[in-house]
Amino acid sequence: MGQRGGAADDDAPTAAVTVTTDGAAREDRVAVEAPLELRLGGKPYTVLMRTPGADEELVRGFLFGEGVIATREEIVAITRPEGLSGDERGNVLAIELATPTADRPPPERLFYSSSSCGVCGKQSIAQLAVRAGTTRPSTFRIGSAAITALPDRLRAAQPIFAATGGVHAAGLFDASGALVRVAEDVGRHNAVDKLVGWALAKARLPLIDTGLVVSGRVSYEIMQKAIAAGIPLVAAIGAPSSLAIDLAEQFGVTLIGFLRAGSMNLYSGTL
Amino acid sequence: MGQRGGAADDDAPTAAVTVTTDGAAREDRVAVEAPLELRLGGKPYTVLMRTPGADEELVRGFLFGEGVIATREEIVAITRPEGLSGDERGNVLAIELATPTADRPPPERLFYSSSSCGVCGKQSIAQLAVRAGTTRPSTFRIGSAAITALPDRLRAAQPIFAATGGVHAAGLFDASGALVRVAEDVGRHNAVDKLVGWALAKARLPLIDTGLVVSGRVSYEIMQKAIAAGIPLVAAIGAPSSLAIDLAEQFGVTLIGFLRAGSMNLYSGTL
Repeated sequence: MGQRGGAADDDAPTAAVTVTTDGAAREDRVAVEAPLELRLGGKPYTVLMRTPGADEELVRGFLFGEGVIATREEIVAITRPEGLSGDERGNVLAIELATPTADRPPPERLFYSSSSCGVCGKQSIAQLAVRAGTTRPSTFRIGSAAITALPDRLRAAQPIFAATGGVHAAGLFDASGALVRVAEDVGRHNAVDKLVGWALAKARLPLIDTGLVVSGRVSYEIMQKAIAAGIPLVAAIGAPSSLAIDLAEQFGVTLIGFLRAGSMNLYSGTL
Repeated sequence: MGQRGGAADDDAPTAAVTVTTDGAAREDRVAVEAPLELRLGGKPYTVLMRTPGADEELVRGFLFGEGVIATREEIVAITRPEGLSGDERGNVLAIELATPTADRPPPERLFYSSSSCGVCGKQSIAQLAVRAGTTRPSTFRIGSAAITALPDRLRAAQPIFAATGGVHAAGLFDASGALVRVAEDVGRHNAVDKLVGWALAKARLPLIDTGLVVSGRVSYEIMQKAIAAGIPLVAAIGAPSSLAIDLAEQFGVTLIGFLRAGSMNLYSGTL
């Protein structure tokens, strides 16, 4: 499976392709999607389909979001194994944890299949409550003008989308509406993981003074990640799902959908 | 975890919520997202987050797409277990297979974590090649006018999106551009699974005379499902990822992105 752009482009988030429009061939750029294999204790752990470029942040945020780690100190090292070639080069990360990996739970998404959990919502939401319990009460407040300015600010901070039109974005913003950090990825959950992983490495978790804005819709998975990170406000340019609203109400998260330059829908909480 | 709308709404794809816009509260409808637990041989197998309403089609398509079954005869029965109450009612399906479930592979997405596969792209693509190998060469041809009419046709066939603005859609269409079947879901992969599951139950696989149109972007997962179902043409209203283009070229699938009423980009193959 050749990665577009060849070896020199292994970590590039976009790749050149030939596209035909109205019968004429031209060069176009598309968002790179490539598998990233995570190894824990030297053994394959899982594979993420992601846009390369912020792999360490993605890994930290993914492991935190899945409940594999709770603090940044639990990750001792993240390295690219030597001796790989071709497609594997750049697409494998070895994670060394402070305690043996045998003690680590499988990712929750895998846990679904092996546990007898009835309809899993209950059990995984109970787990989420335990993790979110470390969050201090939020005093995060933001004006509606600052919120409705976010779509334009986010769009201006999306270089991969500007080049390809093919990625989701997520951003962290402060109480003035200023973007603190933006991540892009073909997977919207990955974009959020990259932000949380960045915050984890910077010792900024829980993110009680930071809101999250996402370029797409907001469903269970995005809310789960936001709640685990202690984020008090989630604003989506797209629609929320029923389960996203349920989670927002249960965990006291302010949830905004259909965020536009001049308007928004408030589904849970207050500004 | 209460499902919005209460017990009477368990299978409804949309739910009523209260939303505040410009300071005024009103009733709005959102797309339902709820967990669906699949049981194989009486044991929990996996949980899908999905929009209710076409659960059996989703299950058939999911099991086919993951390589758990290859023919419709392998599913003997799909039933809702008795004795469930509350949230579980309507959100659990028991699948009886013709052969013991112990022989079944875990879903490929789970397989990722337990196999020593190097960067998984290679192995899972090799598996895909085996399954796609049952496909006869396609003679599917369609004119560009029929293709560019699809976005409007798809939009007109999306009742859940019309009510909520919060779901993806996927459609199967014939060589005249007429939609044969449309599915909606909060998960775009689920929407495709619902179509493939419908086709499987109707003994219409492989879908060598049918194209697939999707309302969003097209990445690895969507292409994998299309190829496994023998679909010769995939048209996306959004952008393709690099890996989607790679797969399309490798398996001879025509891939269209940025499909609009008057234009399209052709990334692989010919019309």
